Amino acid sequence: MEYKDLRNKAEIFLHQHYGGKILILPNIWNVLGAQLLEHLGYPSIATASASIAFSNGYDDGEKIKFTRLLSILRDITKAVNIPVSADIEKGYSNSLGQLKKNIRLLIESGIVGINIEDSKGQRNELHTIESQCNRIKTIRKEAEKLGIPLVINARTDVFLLEHSNRSIALKEAITRGKAYKDAGADCFYPILLSNLEDISKLVQKLSMPINLFLTKEIADIKQLQQIGVARISLGPSLLKVGLSCIKSVAEDLLSYDSKKLFGNNIIASEYIREFVRKENE
Amino acid sequence: MEYKDLRNKAEIFLHQHYGGKILILPNIWNVLGAQLLEHLGYPSIATASASIAFSNGYDDGEKIKFTRLLSILRDITKAVNIPVSADIEKGYSNSLGQLKKNIRLLIESGIVGINIEDSKGQRNELHTIESQCNRIKTIRKEAEKLGIPLVINARTDVFLLEHSNRSIALKEAITRGKAYKDAGADCFYPILLSNLEDISKLVQKLSMPINLFLTKEIADIKQLQQIGVARISLGPSLLKVGLSCIKSVAEDLLSYDSKKLFGNNIIASEYIREFVRKENE
Repeated sequence: MEYKDLRNKAEIFLHQHYGGKILILPNIWNVLGAQLLEHLGYPSIATASASIAFSNGYDDGEKIKFTRLLSILRDITKAVNIPVSADIEKGYSNSLGQLKKNIRLLIESGIVGINIEDSKGQRNELHTIESQCNRIKTIRKEAEKLGIPLVINARTDVFLLEHSNRSIALKEAITRGKAYKDAGADCFYPILLSNLEDISKLVQKLSMPINLFLTKEIADIKQLQQIGVARISLGPSLLKVGLSCIKSVAEDLLSYDSKKLFGNNIIASEYIREFVRKENE
Repeated sequence: MEYKDLRNKAEIFLHQHYGGKILILPNIWNVLGAQLLEHLGYPSIATASASIAFSNGYDDGEKIKFTRLLSILRDITKAVNIPVSADIEKGYSNSLGQLKKNIRLLIESGIVGINIEDSKGQRNELHTIESQCNRIKTIRKEAEKLGIPLVINARTDVFLLEHSNRSIALKEAITRGKAYKDAGADCFYPILLSNLEDISKLVQKLSMPINLFLTKEIADIKQLQQIGVARISLGPSLLKVGLSCIKSVAEDLLSYDSKKLFGNNIIASEYIREFVRKENE
């Protein structure tokens, strides 16, 4: 696949949401992860804010500096050819002006997609639909000004809130999905929605791609594809998989047990050298 | 354990080489790894140049910029209390003047130990003993000027070279070990030495701590302790352990198989939050 420019790369990324097959968009946090996934054949990748925060030693929630995030994104987009989508949480902004500036910097970092949340300040409060739509419109307008059809994945945090019942939450999600689409979103992401019946209803009610966070409760990817889910992402799961293995080996070594360290089919340096760069930085 | 200052931390690190028990010094490449190992109870940690290079998408061998290395080291030493030793390869320098400047910058980054190799340019050439001793003396002198008893782990690449026979290589290693000690090294690191008899001879001939790279061939840590090995390190093994697990899960997901992703006893975000920082960067 060839990318003429960033605009072309964004178009290809959007197209991947309409391929008929579910788009598996794995989330990484550093250059090596990006290079590995490209090497394995993934057509695009995303970052996870939690993974980037954790790997730098901070909790999630815009704790690391925006300048650090930009620098990590630049490093990643420079290292791979496939489209990269960035999880930008709440957009690191309290105003539409700041959001606009940040979107320009993000696109200049080489990303062609974003996740933007409708949570506001604390986790238990959402932007009003009008407010979040204004944020999405601002993003779309700025991206258009730069000539980039940025793939906006509008995340709703409706299912992170406590609800009296499921149908009220689902109704709110459908209303928000429709509004976000009209405001310029390309994809809708109801994080933690994990009831197959509700997922199916949402897909039917919204005429736009739906992104789901793959969890133990909805782990059957083929089934999600059959229901009509367009894309799945992994959040910080890959980071946790790697860290779990490292933790287990490191715990054993403390008691002089090196069996796990050498027991697994461990990657060779030669394999890593198939995709890392040989020149000087 | 409390550290009054960097000098105190360096002294404690050196002391760990004489505790009677073998010092297991695991190698990490980012802040999260450092925090995890401190949380697990490791008394000190080291970086591996290959892991830092790979995780940033470059091959090993001083390919990443020295300024990037310093920035990563600063981030790590700020995030943990335990002593951190840095793998600085050949010292990123072609002259003693440059080496001196780099040592100052490295100590200012908060590290209290280094690995320095005697390879020169290409892998198949070593510094003369005199030349490498001058480099070690320069490092010791600069560290003393700053008042830091930097723990110098002098790596010899003798066993990376092709030798007509084992005993010639061992003899050369013993000669180099003695000379490096006299020049100011605290610890001697014959990388890839993996013959137990030779390891034992080396320990007996040199009156200084020996660091070994733990490999499949010499995986019995208790046995190494009995022979008198003072310290073991892991090179890029922990990075490879994590990457192997991520690769395996990512390969399965490409064919819609999420069993491994959720099958392992995966770390929870709550566990990671026990040791990452909650404040803003």
